[in-house]
Amino acid sequence: MASSAWMLAVCVAALTVTVVGAAANKQAERNCSLTPPYLPSTAVNTSLQLQQLRVQMQSSNISAYIIPGTDAHMSEYIALRDARLAFMTGFTGSAGTAVVTQSKAVLWTDSRYWVQAERQMDCNWELEKDASISSVADWLMSELPLGSSVSFDPFLFSLETFQNYASDLESSGLRLNPITTNLVDTVWKDRPPLSAESLIRLPDRVINRSWQMKVQEIRNLMMENLNSPTALLLSALDETAWLFNLRGNDIPYNPFFYSYTLLTQNEIWLFVHTERVTKDLEEYLEAHCSDPLCVQLKPYDSVLQELSKYVLQPDIRVWIGTEYTNYALFQLIPQAKLITSTYSPVLTSKAVKDETEEQVLRDAHVRDAVAVIQLLMWLENVVPQGNETELSAAEYVNKCRSKQKDNRGPSFETISASGPNAALAHYSASVETNRRLTVDEMYLVDSGGQYLDGTTDITRTVHWGTPTQMQKEAFTRVLMGNIEISRTVFPSGTRGVNLEMLGRRALWEVGLNYGHGTGHGVGNYFGVHEWPVGFQTNNIPFRAGMFTSIGEPGYYKENDFGIRIEDIAVTVPAQTKYGNNYLTFDTVSLVPYDRKLIDISLLSTEQRKWLNKYYETIRRLVGPELDKQGLHEENNWMLKNTEAFPELGSSASICSSSLTLIALAATLLHSVS
Amino acid sequence: MASSAWMLAVCVAALTVTVVGAAANKQAERNCSLTPPYLPSTAVNTSLQLQQLRVQMQSSNISAYIIPGTDAHMSEYIALRDARLAFMTGFTGSAGTAVVTQSKAVLWTDSRYWVQAERQMDCNWELEKDASISSVADWLMSELPLGSSVSFDPFLFSLETFQNYASDLESSGLRLNPITTNLVDTVWKDRPPLSAESLIRLPDRVINRSWQMKVQEIRNLMMENLNSPTALLLSALDETAWLFNLRGNDIPYNPFFYSYTLLTQNEIWLFVHTERVTKDLEEYLEAHCSDPLCVQLKPYDSVLQELSKYVLQPDIRVWIGTEYTNYALFQLIPQAKLITSTYSPVLTSKAVKDETEEQVLRDAHVRDAVAVIQLLMWLENVVPQGNETELSAAEYVNKCRSKQKDNRGPSFETISASGPNAALAHYSASVETNRRLTVDEMYLVDSGGQYLDGTTDITRTVHWGTPTQMQKEAFTRVLMGNIEISRTVFPSGTRGVNLEMLGRRALWEVGLNYGHGTGHGVGNYFGVHEWPVGFQTNNIPFRAGMFTSIGEPGYYKENDFGIRIEDIAVTVPAQTKYGNNYLTFDTVSLVPYDRKLIDISLLSTEQRKWLNKYYETIRRLVGPELDKQGLHEENNWMLKNTEAFPELGSSASICSSSLTLIALAATLLHSVS
Repeated sequence: MASSAWMLAVCVAALTVTVVGAAANKQAERNCSLTPPYLPSTAVNTSLQLQQLRVQMQSSNISAYIIPGTDAHMSEYIALRDARLAFMTGFTGSAGTAVVTQSKAVLWTDSRYWVQAERQMDCNWELEKDASISSVADWLMSELPLGSSVSFDPFLFSLETFQNYASDLESSGLRLNPITTNLVDTVWKDRPPLSAESLIRLPDRVINRSWQMKVQEIRNLMMENLNSPTALLLSALDETAWLFNLRGNDIPYNPFFYSYTLLTQNEIWLFVHTERVTKDLEEYLEAHCSDPLCVQLKPYDSVLQELSKYVLQPDIRVWIGTEYTNYALFQLIPQAKLITSTYSPVLTSKAVKDETEEQVLRDAHVRDAVAVIQLLMWLENVVPQGNETELSAAEYVNKCRSKQKDNRGPSFETISASGPNAALAHYSASVETNRRLTVDEMYLVDSGGQYLDGTTDITRTVHWGTPTQMQKEAFTRVLMGNIEISRTVFPSGTRGVNLEMLGRRALWEVGLNYGHGTGHGVGNYFGVHEWPVGFQTNNIPFRAGMFTSIGEPGYYKENDFGIRIEDIAVTVPAQTKYGNNYLTFDTVSLVPYDRKLIDISLLSTEQRKWLNKYYETIRRLVGPELDKQGLHEENNWMLKNTEAFPELGSSASICSSSLTLIALAATLLHSVS
Repeated sequence: MASSAWMLAVCVAALTVTVVGAAANKQAERNCSLTPPYLPSTAVNTSLQLQQLRVQMQSSNISAYIIPGTDAHMSEYIALRDARLAFMTGFTGSAGTAVVTQSKAVLWTDSRYWVQAERQMDCNWELEKDASISSVADWLMSELPLGSSVSFDPFLFSLETFQNYASDLESSGLRLNPITTNLVDTVWKDRPPLSAESLIRLPDRVINRSWQMKVQEIRNLMMENLNSPTALLLSALDETAWLFNLRGNDIPYNPFFYSYTLLTQNEIWLFVHTERVTKDLEEYLEAHCSDPLCVQLKPYDSVLQELSKYVLQPDIRVWIGTEYTNYALFQLIPQAKLITSTYSPVLTSKAVKDETEEQVLRDAHVRDAVAVIQLLMWLENVVPQGNETELSAAEYVNKCRSKQKDNRGPSFETISASGPNAALAHYSASVETNRRLTVDEMYLVDSGGQYLDGTTDITRTVHWGTPTQMQKEAFTRVLMGNIEISRTVFPSGTRGVNLEMLGRRALWEVGLNYGHGTGHGVGNYFGVHEWPVGFQTNNIPFRAGMFTSIGEPGYYKENDFGIRIEDIAVTVPAQTKYGNNYLTFDTVSLVPYDRKLIDISLLSTEQRKWLNKYYETIRRLVGPELDKQGLHEENNWMLKNTEAFPELGSSASICSSSLTLIALAATLLHSVS
């Protein structure tokens, strides 16, 4: 799944946009300038919650209340019970900020969501189209009298969000006033409850390091830190899940559970909804002792109080990763007792997979390839009959995945997009937008699975009829970008952002480009976008053993078609003639590209070699798995689609032209003689 | 000339290291642990200046005095009168910081300069090898009692330098105490005087925009700035020189003059040594009126006082570029009256050359190519005779350049390096290190000229005998890096740092790399490293009309040889099949590469095409100039060295192999018949 900042949240949007579904009428957007205003059936009446919130604000003397769209862990995906922005505004897009005053209610969101917002909001709400914090701050300054109190839930602000508001409002005479009781929650009567399901531990076969080993590893990193932290506070949900080899199901598509961890050299405090920890897990966690390798379970909601107590002690220093720590916890820690890094040592450790993690993640991709090959073969067979749609294709691939060993559902909502729909980078099929699949349109499918041993994410673009020359050229150049990143050799420690242009270069050459990022980390049964690995400015340098989606180069022609190719790859040591400590990528997604869309004449010698070698790997790894699963027809389809392409300058091609000449020469000789 | 942070100052180092020259004895480094200490003849006795400085410090109650190596304009090259660090320490390297207390004197410098420092300093000085500000700060904290005053000249601190010291010393109990009277100057009796030479104005034929037009342009940018600056303060020496189309000679190799400018919508204040402004220039500058387009000349030394007065006014806001403004001026401006950007609008405007600037800079490169071709041909002829050295080669190319129209001397000290000397990236020949040139060693020459119409900078590496296979491979891969950057097509607005890996990729492929940057801007008769254009993180995005050195890819084999290829190129619009607003590079340095060192089999089709097209351009542009100058032998040499390389997959090569086959077939047929 594509991963630029503006696309990170694609899936949540996709998840919720289906709410709009049924309302396929012509005037789907509100018109508040009419009398009475026109409201589409998809608009949500927000009068009651607004009125109740305003009462709350008045009693606390709050002039404006800011409602962000995230959760207390700065999660990319959020649980329904954290969808406060949607509850208050009606708007279910993944990016937005709302502000409520006694007289006004305003939503800020970016261009992806303007139409959706106009369909979902009633006329209580204004829409502002510059979604930056400074735009919100400017509005606050223009609306509120000096001395007004601007309030927010500090659990929902990252440190950076807070600092941006603080600096923008610095000279405004407004007061930024964090209150830890969330005002939206106080008026949200039917707020979805917390999942009651117990946490699960990963089976031993998919892990190498026990949680005790990981704890020791992180404690060692704490000791190596020259600033001498006495404690490490973990806030991102995958940090705690990784540390204890545990998973949950609190957030759609993400096997996370609400948690924080405070780790010292002598104690481990796990903040969690303790009622969801079974007796077995208590035993597993050594939850009834207080030795350095016993996990002390503390109620999730006690984190503020416990951290406050901890930081009162003399001679302590708390290490946090600023990217995922919320402002409520951050501001508890006095400056002199604070040690910061962008990412916690857990996130940077997790980024490098150990041998087992690497192997099982590779294994998961073999099974995942089976599901995607099943889909592609099936579509090739059934699309010409004219009965399949974007939604039925998405259903099919989900079903195929669900039959694979250890599958735990999709890793995000499948993006199944035909023709012009694929040109919308954040598209996901809904009843309203669902297109029939035909041999006349290109089709893009971006999907992934959660498996106990790994998370997958793969995109293929196909055409079942006759693609245009432009479609072939654009597809081939997208593929060239993918191959160029995949095959490049680079010193260990190189940043993805410095390699990223290789994904775009073949497109740039003919004046094409794409408006999103070029890759993101993935993990072992974790979020489909696992930070901090990838090709963006704030990603960490590559070391051996990191998994990233490679090259999600793409090309989108508005109202026509969309192309994206995405594979997961792992950084592996590269043998070079003269140097040491060089890396390259090994692609672990194992599904052939649509041959019909490849203009082989554009590929260089090296690109053809890479492609043929990749196809050999697919045959070697996926072939036996298809056979094992009795999928012989699929195996044949795979073999047909992984036939070697002619390599440039190979004897074959030279011979063929030479043989023509020889034949000609022979004819001439013959006629002469 | 190569341009990584650690190489930016190569030339100043080169300039001064010749001081060491004569002392070619075996024990050239001091040994302070002997009794009496051993001091080489190159060591400078610093007892007197230290004693006098300490008296000054004592009378001002200063515990430690910091002496940086820069000037008040954060210049890369400094005038001899600004070489305070060298005067105090004896050490003449371009990078370093000294601290003096009543009992100790310490120099911090980086690994390039450790040997040089041990040769130039006497035993009054300690050498510290971690040259970071935090290392200096740590030392200060360990040496000084609480409450001590740490002093420095705020004209010699950038804003960033000050902030780093301030943050490192924050909790130390030490006081950072700027004093604008430089204490070193008070004890420097024979400090070199200011140049008495008058400033000059550029001839009309090399400029398009009069200074009045430039002033208007910058005033417009000030009006477009949403923070509404009322004044712009220019501190970098090339900012004022550019604005008024003036040049000076205050700094070796750099046609700059000491100056500041304060520009408002109604006034222009030029701070300059007014005695160096001739009557003619006064007229040119409209120096005797006070209209918005009259330049009010103010004494250079009055800038502090005048700025103080200006900022006292209500409703003013001063815009500064933080990169080049010194702390003395910065701290005068109250926060509420300050507007900052990394670079001033003059620097970002200057980065894009206008039509005339582009044309004359191209022209200068044609004449410059003549000089370099003269050098290369001459060396090819004379080196086998065994009488030439690095120094004589450097002299020769300087002489060749001096004969070209509008030449104003070299743009930096020529790096003329044979064999292992070329592996020292900051090498410049001295009497001590001078190597005889032979057919057995590779030779690298990195040189440039100042011309009234432009600044040049070009590096070529050659071999007059038989290079090893490894040398050929390394050279070819360096060249491939140069070509790959040069020929790439990219969207306007792409940052150099995102293209930079193309310069390294062919080297990475076989495990080779280089430890410096990949290019820097150049200007029209300006510094040879013209910021903020280039391939580093802090360079600005490329737009059409920017000149940069491309690809200074290189490879350095310690104690053996060094390879670097450097050309200047200009960003030009690229015609693409589908898109608009794409750029590519057009190389304006016009000297062929050593054919002997090119392993043509490594070059791709596109690389060969690029190279052949480049060689055609050299023939087309430099051929007529050589002829015009009567340099017919050089013209022949150039023609011989720019012959086309065979292109891959061309009919020629296919035919040749086919013809062999045809001949074979004919023979067979014959024998059959």
